[in-house]
Formats: sequence, C-alpha cells, structure tokens
Amino acid sequence: MTKPLESWNDGPTKQALLDFVAIVSDESNADYLPPSERVATFDNDGTLWVEKPAYVQLLFAIQRLKDMAEADPGLLGQPAFQAAAADDLGYFAALYPDDLPALMQVVFDSHAGMPQQEFEILAYDFLSQARHPRFGVVYKQCIYQPMLELMDYLQVNGFRVFIASAGGMSFMRTVAEEIYQVPRENVIGSNITFEVGRQDGKLILLRRPGLVDPPDDGPGKPINIELHIGRPPVLAAGNSNGDIEMMEYAEASGRPFLNLLLHHDDARREYAYNAGAEKALRLAGERNWTVVSMKDDFRTVFPFEAR
Amino acid sequence: MTKPLESWNDGPTKQALLDFVAIVSDESNADYLPPSERVATFDNDGTLWVEKPAYVQLLFAIQRLKDMAEADPGLLGQPAFQAAAADDLGYFAALYPDDLPALMQVVFDSHAGMPQQEFEILAYDFLSQARHPRFGVVYKQCIYQPMLELMDYLQVNGFRVFIASAGGMSFMRTVAEEIYQVPRENVIGSNITFEVGRQDGKLILLRRPGLVDPPDDGPGKPINIELHIGRPPVLAAGNSNGDIEMMEYAEASGRPFLNLLLHHDDARREYAYNAGAEKALRLAGERNWTVVSMKDDFRTVFPFEAR
Repeated sequence: MTKPLESWNDGPTKQALLDFVAIVSDESNADYLPPSERVATFDNDGTLWVEKPAYVQLLFAIQRLKDMAEADPGLLGQPAFQAAAADDLGYFAALYPDDLPALMQVVFDSHAGMPQQEFEILAYDFLSQARHPRFGVVYKQCIYQPMLELMDYLQVNGFRVFIASAGGMSFMRTVAEEIYQVPRENVIGSNITFEVGRQDGKLILLRRPGLVDPPDDGPGKPINIELHIGRPPVLAAGNSNGDIEMMEYAEASGRPFLNLLLHHDDARREYAYNAGAEKALRLAGERNWTVVSMKDDFRTVFPFEAR
Repeated sequence: MTKPLESWNDGPTKQALLDFVAIVSDESNADYLPPSERVATFDNDGTLWVEKPAYVQLLFAIQRLKDMAEADPGLLGQPAFQAAAADDLGYFAALYPDDLPALMQVVFDSHAGMPQQEFEILAYDFLSQARHPRFGVVYKQCIYQPMLELMDYLQVNGFRVFIASAGGMSFMRTVAEEIYQVPRENVIGSNITFEVGRQDGKLILLRRPGLVDPPDDGPGKPINIELHIGRPPVLAAGNSNGDIEMMEYAEASGRPFLNLLLHHDDARREYAYNAGAEKALRLAGERNWTVVSMKDDFRTVFPFEAR
C-alpha cells in the first residue's frame, strides 16, 4: 500500500487536502458530510491536462477542418478552413477570450451531422495518436499525476468525482474512464445536442450544429453542475477565471468546502502563465481558496516522468 | 438474506430478469458486460410511481398556480390559473397528448424565477404531504415495490441505475435518493435551465422559464441519455409510447439488452389502461421486448401493502 498523494510535496497544500478529507469523513466531526454530499468537481483544461500551446480540442477541430478542406477545397473560401489548412493557430487564438462563442462554434460545429459513434472514434484516436509538440507524448498522457492521485484519494474516501470543464463533454468522455477513472456520466462539459436518426433501421444519434446554452464556463459551470449533479460541489478544482463561479458555488453551499486553484508557475517542467487566471488568483487570496503551486506542490508533474 | 425480487411472482418475466443479470455478470459468458457497460434506465411516471389519476407533477403545478392566484387574483384572467383555482383537472388533461409542450410549459413555468433551493423544498414537501386520492398515502409512497427490488438487485450486481423520465428532473431528484436509492445525479428528466443570481453576496441559482429542448420523452430520451450518461442502456424499463425510443436505443446498442414494458392491467390493485401505450405494446410483441403484467407478475404492488 502506497502513501496517499505521493506525487505531492509535503507542505501546507498537501496538508489542506489530507485535513479536508479527514474532517468530512469523520462522523464525530461537526463538519462531517454523508457520502451523498461528497461531490468533487474538477475543471479539465489546465487542471487535469495540459492546455498549452493550445486547447487540445481546438487542435482536434483544426485537424477536422483540414480534412474537410482536403476533401472539398471549396471550403477554403471560409477563413476558419483557410487558417486550419495553413496551420495558423494564431487565427484561432485571436478569437479567445473575446470571441469565445465564435471559437467554440468552430470547434463544435466541425463535426455537425456526424453520427455520435463515429465522432467518438475520431476523438479517441486523436487523443491517443496526436503528440504534444513539446513533451512528445500523446495528448491523453499529458495529464497531471498529482491530480490523478487526488481524484483517486477522493474516490477511495467516498467522494464522487466529476469533471466540469468548458471542453466538449463527448470529447473528454472518450478517454475519461481510461485516463482518470472517472465514469463517462460524471463528465460534464460544454455540449451540442443530438437528433435521432436511423441507420439500417436502427436508432442512431446524430450530432447537431450549435452549442447548448450555457457553455460550461464561468456562470455556466454551476448551472451545468445543477443540471448534471443536482447539488453543489464541496471540493472544486480549477485553474482559471472560468472556474470562479464553480468555486463560488462550493463556497455558497453552506457546507464545509475546499477550493483549489492550480497556478501554472513552472516554466521548467510545464508552463508559467497567469493570463486568463488573474481574477481567480486575486479572489483566491481574498477568500482563502487554496492556491496549488505546480512548482512547489507537485513533486512529479506527469505520469511519464521518471520517478 | 432475502431472496432477490421477492415481490415478483415466479414465472417467465421474473426468470427473464434473473437470467439477464446472471448472463451479463458472468465473465465466462459471451454476453458478459463489464460493469462500466451495465447501465439501466427507468422511466418514472407509470413505471416507478403511480401516474393516475394525473401526473403527480401536474398536481404539484396546479397547487402552485392556486397559491399564486390566491396571492394575486388578477392572474385568474388566465385560463390555466382559472382552471387550477376551480380544481378543473379536465382542462389540463385535455392538453395531453396533443398539446404536451403547452402542458409542460404550464408545469415548468409555474416556478420560474424561484431560487432552486426554494423549489426543492416545495417539491419535497408536496411529495411528502399531499395524499393520493385513492390510496390515501403520500405520493412518495405510491411507488412499485417490485421495481424497487429490481433496481436494488441491479445495483447489487454492478449496474448503475438511472431514471430517465419526462417528469421534471429537479422535482424527482428531491426524493429519488430517499425512495429509490438512486443518486440525484442519476436522475434524468425534462428540465428547465437556470441563471446565476446573488443573495446576500452569495451565488444562487434561479429557475428560468422555458423548457430545455428536447423534453425527456420519446426521441428526447436517447438524446438526454447521451447527454447525461454517454452510453446506451442495456436494460430499459418504461410503460408508454414515450419510452419507445429509449428501448430502441438499448436495442441498437449492439450489446445484450433487456427491454421491460410495464402493462397496467390491474384495476383491482392499481389501474388498468392501455391509453398512451398502444404502440409500445404492439412493438413489444413484434420485437421480443418483455411485457411486465402488473396483475400477473407483481406479487405485491406497493410498499404500504400488508405482506
């Protein structure tokens, strides 16, 4: 039997995690929570897997746009297809954050009309075959070992662990059981809707264009958590301004809670950036949310690192 | 230790349930399913709880309309409020099934603008206090004992049990853990959406008017199952035409499956009706779905019956 959270360095952050789990699991403690209330929600991009140099799902969509333009060069008249064909990541990066809806539309509509089963195969194959430009491993391995251990530790202690991310629900679900040990139904994300079709007389689901409102970011997180879980998290983990409302929801739950904000401050082993997290970092300081320093708190960052 | 499914009479239906669970749990069987694939979905109205003389949630909405009209008599100029004030169930019944969207709008919009926490208290109190006119017990007790045992038996055998019902997701969730031992997050239904508000500086969720499309009925069932679970059920239980697509989804899964259609044929102990289930009954005969006869297959109908 290994010690819990072995890829976390000893220190106040690790201690806060251990203490929180111990307290809410202790029936004699005033802050005890019955297992039904032990809900943990984790953002995905930048919290569980690497989000630099670009959102993995954006790279997946760009690949799809390329493939479509190759099959039908007429599509190159549209700027998104042209940018994809030219590997112009800057075109898409410029849409963020001010044109997030437009960016998300590019990402999600790129597979509109496709049977869901076919989409799942494409997504799984991309995550299992395309390699991260810096780390040289496939994207589904670019995940944070300490977070894997934390999710496992929570599950062992009666928590149900959910993912609540702006990323596409179906996209993440194709690998969530394999890489996170999180069941598909516990993956909440932004999503499209479907229509029922028939193939050889059998019912199939076809992906429709258009995002379901609200996308699972910012105020959309507590809303989608309510729709998918029906109660607030008591442990919420994120890394950006898009996670603020999820943490506020945990804070407003009236229950003991722990909010974790992963700070990307490790340019040597991963990346160092505050962009998109400025407000979250400020609030964390004001409200006693726990900032996790990748540099100081993560003993190991990735599962593929030598131990 | 009691025998499984003791409130089911011995016979081909009970045997089909026992056989299906035994087969998919047996690693040496060609039809073995790993636990991740063992997903069961149950309709609620008429499958888990009584839906006559009216949908319970409609009665809850009528109570709300009455209360609103009492507080603001000006509302009586609107036909739905007038009908509610006059206890005119026929007005609402006439909307079904052709004006189902209008009926659902009445039901769901009756609590628009309300904080979700407040709604949950009203819903829980209604289900725990209002009494069924014929059985004289509170609505949350008007549930089918054999179905409780089946859900338990499935869970014991590694299934995850979900509710997939046209009824309101939040409404059912207030009692699902208590009466069905089904976690809140496993309850899928028709739903509204929310907006984020602030109360004393704390984040709260407010119910918005309007149903999320599609409602969880007919083709909306596989769509909402995909959104909430991400894989098809292998056991689907329903009682009406609104459950057909859910069963077709199980059938199209490419996995071993069992579809159960509860036939209300017991006027003495419950009700006898085919209305709204004609097509489902016909398809069940054509496709080898299992029809459960309440009269013949249920030894006990309700938990409150003397044993």
